[in-house]
Parts: sequence; structure tokens; C-alpha cells
Amino acid sequence: MTRISDMSEDELIALFAPRLPETDATILGSGDDSAVLAVDGDLVVSADMLVEDRHFRRAWSTGADVGWRAAMQNLADIDAMGAVPTALEVCLSAPGDTDVEFVLGLADGLREACEPHGVGVVGGDLSGGSEIVVAVTAIGETHGTEPVTRADAEVGDIIAVAGELGAARAGLALLEAGRRDAPEAIKLFLRPSPRIGAGLEAALHGATAMMDLSDGLARDGARMARASQVRLAVESAAIPIHEAAQFTGQVLGEDALGWAIGGGEDHHMLACFPRQSAVPAGWHVIGRVEDGEPGLVIDGERPGEAGWDHFR
Amino acid sequence: MTRISDMSEDELIALFAPRLPETDATILGSGDDSAVLAVDGDLVVSADMLVEDRHFRRAWSTGADVGWRAAMQNLADIDAMGAVPTALEVCLSAPGDTDVEFVLGLADGLREACEPHGVGVVGGDLSGGSEIVVAVTAIGETHGTEPVTRADAEVGDIIAVAGELGAARAGLALLEAGRRDAPEAIKLFLRPSPRIGAGLEAALHGATAMMDLSDGLARDGARMARASQVRLAVESAAIPIHEAAQFTGQVLGEDALGWAIGGGEDHHMLACFPRQSAVPAGWHVIGRVEDGEPGLVIDGERPGEAGWDHFR
Repeated sequence: MTRISDMSEDELIALFAPRLPETDATILGSGDDSAVLAVDGDLVVSADMLVEDRHFRRAWSTGADVGWRAAMQNLADIDAMGAVPTALEVCLSAPGDTDVEFVLGLADGLREACEPHGVGVVGGDLSGGSEIVVAVTAIGETHGTEPVTRADAEVGDIIAVAGELGAARAGLALLEAGRRDAPEAIKLFLRPSPRIGAGLEAALHGATAMMDLSDGLARDGARMARASQVRLAVESAAIPIHEAAQFTGQVLGEDALGWAIGGGEDHHMLACFPRQSAVPAGWHVIGRVEDGEPGLVIDGERPGEAGWDHFR
Repeated sequence: MTRISDMSEDELIALFAPRLPETDATILGSGDDSAVLAVDGDLVVSADMLVEDRHFRRAWSTGADVGWRAAMQNLADIDAMGAVPTALEVCLSAPGDTDVEFVLGLADGLREACEPHGVGVVGGDLSGGSEIVVAVTAIGETHGTEPVTRADAEVGDIIAVAGELGAARAGLALLEAGRRDAPEAIKLFLRPSPRIGAGLEAALHGATAMMDLSDGLARDGARMARASQVRLAVESAAIPIHEAAQFTGQVLGEDALGWAIGGGEDHHMLACFPRQSAVPAGWHVIGRVEDGEPGLVIDGERPGEAGWDHFR
């Protein structure tokens, strides 16, 4: 193993930078004081950080897993506005005894997540530190639609999600139990795989409100409900449960629906549409926006009251 | 003292966010998945991080000092392209026992540095961590000029700096010596104060190459020389030494010129201009671009050979 303290910053960057993804929007790439990008439309910006032993564990995640997740959760935030991601800035601090392979793996994971979407890493910073911290800022642009916030859901709207839920939380449950016998769920916990582009699709279909599910349907749905001052009424039977979560539920003898409602980090889009016919093909209708005290209800009850609270 | 672990993240954000600066470019501010900004011209992006005990010490710097510095070094990177800064994304990780006042002070320092320039903090992330890490991405836009890189200095150009040098390094020397008797230098170390806008001014005057002096004239000048494949020939007698550095030199019995050459973190602009008459008023001409082996020479010698190496 080579530790990063065995090389100079310039040497590390010389290995790291060529592995990073590129974007066609680049006018001037990394290496100067700033990068320069061409932008159409309005600029959409978001930032998230991953801190070792709080957001990931090196015992579970490779560098590439962490890079993938750092990229994907930020791409989902841009997509959740109905915008198109263009570029990332990536800051990394790490202890001197960090394996160089972990750091280079991080670049690989960023590339694997970004390249299919034409997103580039256009700059960032590397620093020493006592723990690994990855701070990513994602930049995107609107493509002819207004940004879709979480605050404009309207009574009568149809609520839908773009993907099947619960796999990431199921994968975490397996890892916490020290088991590896449902590898698909573990993979989806380590490398969440929302369909980037679903958000733009929703915007083009007239979505009134949207966000990505980073903290789970119960919590994020309640946020959307409060921001929009409406009641999100969800039917539990309509919630799409990921096959990997169902399988994990059988393996561990747990309720996969609970993971689909309370589990976070799937990063699929949650959106409201003005009518049934506006919901894009492949999305799952899970309920309807109602008048009433702002909040999310499942089968008429707040998830906390219904016993989902332990997943929070 | 109230520790940040005494409050919820929502409570902390409710205190933190109102202190942050705003920008007129905001279409949608923080609180949704992403912020949305109006941009003209091309997008200019840069990121930098500050890690506790590597880039600052809590014994020396208040939260506001750290916020100021995090903002200012990023604003300087945008300015160094001849662009205009618009917005910051700020990620902060901190231990649970961090004083809330430090965190709120950070927001104040960000505001104090940004507000005069109309720059807003439009989003970011807060996380727990074992040490304080501040990762800032700065976003700006070109204003009718091409981005000025560090790679286009040409033989015959005039080299100039936008401010007087050495004060930040002098302030560090005082703090390291446990002395406080040149407070202006200490202030300029804790709160570097380059003139933001000098970079745009240089671009409008036809600057061929530019960067901000974050690692000092010797190191950054050599970087510009290598990027442009030219020799930067600087006259030591022409280097403007900050009054606070000169005073500190007298106090500590040290050579202020050494700080002006080898000391970093002043963040003043270093730029090359096609002729003497193009140099903006108030800038200090320090030399000329020559043909020859790429590098920076002072009075014909590499700074390392001339004995500045111990400042590196």
C-alpha cells in the first residue's frame, strides 16, 4: 500500500486528475484559478458532503463507492429541479496514511457516476485532514422549463415516484447485521442508482413539485407537504418496493415496506403531477394531494403514528 | 457556551442562514434541492477548503475570521480570471462540541467578505465531523472579457501586482512568535484583503495572464512562468512591501522583503500586461517577461538560489 503522505500533492493530482470525467461545457478545465464553463438557461447549484464514519465506512465502501455516492446524490439534487447537471467541484480532505488506491478509486467512482450523463469534474481542492471528508458542489442548468421546487404541490395533484424504494435501507440493514446474502441491496446502498433524467422528464410533463428521496418517503414527503402547505395522502399498497428490498426482507425476516417508507438514500424522484395522464410512463402513482393539515399520511395516518418511527 | 450538539440541525440552520449574504442573481434561494441563479456570460467556478489546524487555528482565528478567509480566497480565484463572483456554496463539518458562536461567526465572516461585492451564499451542507472543515465553491461569470488564464504571458509583457505584499506572512510570523505588537499584519493574516475587482480591471486593460498570489510571489510566479513557458524577471527593488510587513520586520528583526517574495495568502493579483501604458493606476510594476528557461527570477536569480527557500 502506498499512503498519500508518501507523495507530493502535485504527484497525487497528476494521478487523480486524468481519471476524472470531463464535460463538453468546459471552456477552460482545471489547473488555473478557476474553471470556465458555457451555460445556457439558468444556473442550478447544490452542495453535499460525505464525512467518514458518519456517511460512509471504509470497512463497507471502496473509494469508488464513495466517489459514486458523492456524485450521485448531487446529480439527483440537480435533476430534482428538472435541470440538467453539467459539472462538479470536488473537495477532499484525508489523513496522510490514506491508501492512494482509495483516493484514486474516488476519482474512478466520480467518473463512473458522471460519465453517462456528460458531467465533468472541473475543479476542486485536496487537503490533509484527520478524517476523510468529500464535499461536492454540483452545477447544472435549466433546459427550457422553470425549476420545479418542492413548494408548489396543489390539492388534487397525483403523487408519483420514479423508482422502486427501500433497497438502500435494506442494504444497510444487511451490512449492520454482518450479512452479505442479498448483494443487490448492498450494492444499491453503496451505489444508489436513481435514474438521472427522471427529474427533467417530470418537469417536461408539467410536474408541480419535486424532490429526490434522500431521507426517505416519510420524512421527505412531509417536507414537501409542509413546503407546499398541503396533505400528501399515500396508499401503502401503491408504494413500489424494490425487489432487492423484498428479498432482503425475506432473508432478515423484516418488513420491506417499512424500508420503502422510512429508509433513505434511494434518491429516486418524488413528484406531483396535475393529473393522472401527466404522469410519465414507468413512474409509480402512490397517492394524491389533499387539503388538510400539512404533512404526509399513509393510509390516512402519519407514518410515525403507524409505527414507522424506528426507521427514522 | 452552547455546543452545536445541543441543538438540532434545523435549529442551527435557522440561526445560521439569516446571517448569510444574498445575491441579486438569486432566482431560488437555499432550502430546496438546489438553488437557481441567473447567469450572463460564461460560468467561472472554483473551490477551496480550509481544514482546522492545517489552514487555521481556533486559538488564533474566530469563526468570523475563518468565514472571511474561506470567502475571500475563493472570491480572489474568480477575480483572477477577470470574472465577477456571484455566489458561494458552503459545506461545513464540525465536532459536536463546537461552540455555536463559532459557527454563527462563520456566517458573519462570510457575509462581511461577500456583501460588499453583492455575492450571496446560496446553499451548502452542515455535517458532524471530528474537526472543522470548511469547503467553499465560488461561482462567477465573465463580464464581456475572455477569461484571463495564467498560461498566456508573452515575452515583452510588463509584470505587475495589484497590492502590497508580505503582510499576511508577517502576521503569521508574529503569531508564531507569540507576539501581538503589529496588529495590522495579524489582521491581514487572519483576514486577507485583496481588492476584489482588481482582476476584472486588469482584464479590461488587456492583461495577458493573471493569478492571485495564494502561495506567494516566488511559487505562484514560477507557476505562471511554467504555464506560459516564459521567464518572469522581477526586480527586488520594485516589489511593493506592505507597510505592516515592514513594521513587523522592524519589530521582529526580520527581512520584510523575504515575506513579500516567499510569503503566501495575501491573495493580491499578479498579472502581465502587453505594455507599460496598459498597467492600471495603482498597480505596481515589478518586472518584465523574458525569453528563457521557464521560471521566475528575482534580480536574475531563482528565489531558491537567492536564499528565499526557507520561506517556502
